[in-house]
Amino acid sequence: MASAAEHDAMRRALANALRGPRGVNPQVGAVILSPAGDVLAEGWHHGAGTPHAEVDALSKLDPGAARGATAVVTLEPCNHTGRTGPCSEALIAAGIIRVVYSVSDPGDHSSGGAARLHEAGVDVEAGLLADEGSALLDSWLAVQRLGRPHVTVKWAQSLDGRAAASDGTSKWITGPAARADVHRRRALADAIVAGTGTVLADDPALTARADDGSLLPDQPVPVIVGSRPVPADAVVRQHPRAFLQYPGDLRSMLDDLRTRGIQRVFVEGGPAVAASFVREGLADELLVYVAPVLIGGDMLALRDIGVSTIAEALRLRVTGVQNLGDDLLIVAAPRPARGRNPEEGVA
Amino acid sequence: MASAAEHDAMRRALANALRGPRGVNPQVGAVILSPAGDVLAEGWHHGAGTPHAEVDALSKLDPGAARGATAVVTLEPCNHTGRTGPCSEALIAAGIIRVVYSVSDPGDHSSGGAARLHEAGVDVEAGLLADEGSALLDSWLAVQRLGRPHVTVKWAQSLDGRAAASDGTSKWITGPAARADVHRRRALADAIVAGTGTVLADDPALTARADDGSLLPDQPVPVIVGSRPVPADAVVRQHPRAFLQYPGDLRSMLDDLRTRGIQRVFVEGGPAVAASFVREGLADELLVYVAPVLIGGDMLALRDIGVSTIAEALRLRVTGVQNLGDDLLIVAAPRPARGRNPEEGVA
Ligand SMILES: NC(=O)c1ccc[n+]([C@@H]2O[C@H](COP(=O)([O-])OP(=O)(O)OC[C@H]3O[C@@H](n4cnc5c(N)ncnc54)[C@H](OP(=O)(O)O)[C@@H]3O)[C@@H](O)[C@H]2O)c1
Ligand SMILES: NC(=O)c1ccc[n+]([C@@H]2O[C@H](COP(=O)([O-])OP(=O)(O)OC[C@H]3O[C@@H](n4cnc5c(N)ncnc54)[C@H](OP(=O)(O)O)[C@@H]3O)[C@@H](O)[C@H]2O)c1
Repeated sequence: MASAAEHDAMRRALANALRGPRGVNPQVGAVILSPAGDVLAEGWHHGAGTPHAEVDALSKLDPGAARGATAVVTLEPCNHTGRTGPCSEALIAAGIIRVVYSVSDPGDHSSGGAARLHEAGVDVEAGLLADEGSALLDSWLAVQRLGRPHVTVKWAQSLDGRAAASDGTSKWITGPAARADVHRRRALADAIVAGTGTVLADDPALTARADDGSLLPDQPVPVIVGSRPVPADAVVRQHPRAFLQYPGDLRSMLDDLRTRGIQRVFVEGGPAVAASFVREGLADELLVYVAPVLIGGDMLALRDIGVSTIAEALRLRVTGVQNLGDDLLIVAAPRPARGRNPEEGVA
Repeated sequence: MASAAEHDAMRRALANALRGPRGVNPQVGAVILSPAGDVLAEGWHHGAGTPHAEVDALSKLDPGAARGATAVVTLEPCNHTGRTGPCSEALIAAGIIRVVYSVSDPGDHSSGGAARLHEAGVDVEAGLLADEGSALLDSWLAVQRLGRPHVTVKWAQSLDGRAAASDGTSKWITGPAARADVHRRRALADAIVAGTGTVLADDPALTARADDGSLLPDQPVPVIVGSRPVPADAVVRQHPRAFLQYPGDLRSMLDDLRTRGIQRVFVEGGPAVAASFVREGLADELLVYVAPVLIGGDMLALRDIGVSTIAEALRLRVTGVQNLGDDLLIVAAPRPARGRNPEEGVA
């Protein structure tokens, strides 16, 4: 059982974690407590290539000062020699006698820290404020689980599944409440992806904006997929962050985005790019904004996804249905097909 | 103010109305009350070409017996010489001094009965149990208002608006709860319409069935639209009612169905027929069953509806969103376009 002092320390550690950058590595915080429960030192992870949180905290103490102390950390100490040594060994060497952590390390290479500590006679307690710890690491944990950034694919459609009228006009299918919701959700992502088809047709800003049109504080990186050049006068060139462009292999694009610390990707479309993400099993979450309108014709919101017979239809798990003004937002996740479960072997 | 006896009499009149057939003419019931509030006679309309309810009731009395009496009728007495004379004149001639009715007659030719009675010195009271009276005449009133049967167009689709996979397979997109709901709603209609495309592709029974597959007591008439012949071994030939077939002019089909006493039409599809009803402004109600599945490809649940630019998109008024198992039922009505309001000039 964790003490009250350890609870307080974990809350401090969670707050410390947020001082580090979101990116390739997890945001982690640590607090070192004396046997009496006083805070001896605090630390956090400052980003890839820098010391981990517990080592950062220990480094602030005189040699020997941590002997008999307790380390409170938001993530299970690693057991892996990367650019920094294993934290488990550092804690053992410093004379730490108890480690309390929130979230277990899901990594193949880095996990095993708790077992190593235990083996060395350190008292280990896992799962303190686990909900808060998981929420903090939500995106990073998703990346660990998926082996790539988490992908949300959004589209707006008429009830009959069209994204535009036959002359290409589409402003606006959905109403202001739905469009504001899109902007709020864009701001939660690290990157916004659009196809060259959309960039050339609509000249979108790919910014996350408030209702009054002003830029929200967090701006995801704009990412353009497709080989056609982005025009010199494209509005996306005025985005506060420089855009990235990839020719079109979505998996290698996601791999590259991951190395840049991008954990959450928001795919804006258009219909061809959205269909490719779905077809390749790379859509983790779907946001379908459905307007109460019929359009007919052939400007589909989602193109071919490789389904040729009804048994192959991509079944969805609907996690939410929400009214936004006159529109409906359907939040769903593809159900993995039997035999090609992408999460197979993952807990 | 209607008396308690008049309230009771109206309830009896509503029950009497239901003894007549549903069809081209409204179901109407009448009760004649003595000045003391005793029931002198009751009547109802037995179908086109037979006396109206109030005349039916009066015919059960000796000459002179209705003098000073009150007539309680579910529908405003008519003022129109059709196959039967105007009821207003019959009531005046019989010496009725007060008329209480529930629903006003919306007809161009038949209305005006209340004014005629009032002119002749009869005390007239309208709107007694108006909700019950309107509910009874719901379908008939819709026909009067629309000038044709009321049309419900139903389709089942994937979230992305497809009715089938590219090989034509579509069994089943929606689940059992949605399919049972379709059968219940079919049973409320007087006719079920399907295109020859669907008849030839799916060989549907066009019956309304219970969950166990047995026929529901009310079976709408099956109606097939299209000029291709219905195969000799088509399952629809085993329907308890003989099917009607029309080459394809939907307005003249609806006119003909109206003369057959059909008030509610349920359009089952397919996509071409559904689109024609929508395009021609003949869809009063839409039932869209949306399954949580993506199909892609080009088997659309609704074909071209004549919208070429986004401003022409057919806006819907959604009147209900309902979960049916994993599926969603969206009930909606087209909003009339400005300048071509089909209800223009109607109250
Ligand atoms: N309703 C909505 O939510 C929504 C959202 C966005 C856009 N839209 C509409 O969609 C229309 C544009 O749609 P679109 O389908 O032509 O364009 P798109 O999906 O934006 O872009 C398609 C282009 O992306 C490139 N690309 C590269 N890799 C790809 C891959 N793996 N899969 C698919 N495409 C890849 C190709 O261009 P290259 O030849 O350059 O390689 C391809 O032609 C516009 O009218 C726009 O208004 C609607
Ligand atoms: N998802 C659903 O709810 C649903 C429901 C029903 C059917 N379906 C699927 O739909 C497919 C068949 O669709 P479909 O579009 O080919 O057939 P359809 O809409 O059932 O029938 C179209 C045919 O109806 C006739 N027609 C006559 N007047 C018409 C008018 N005013 N407008 C349109 N058509 C008229 C024409 O045939 P003639 O040449 O004979 O005149 C036309 O080819 C099947 O695969 C079936 O499984 C799906």
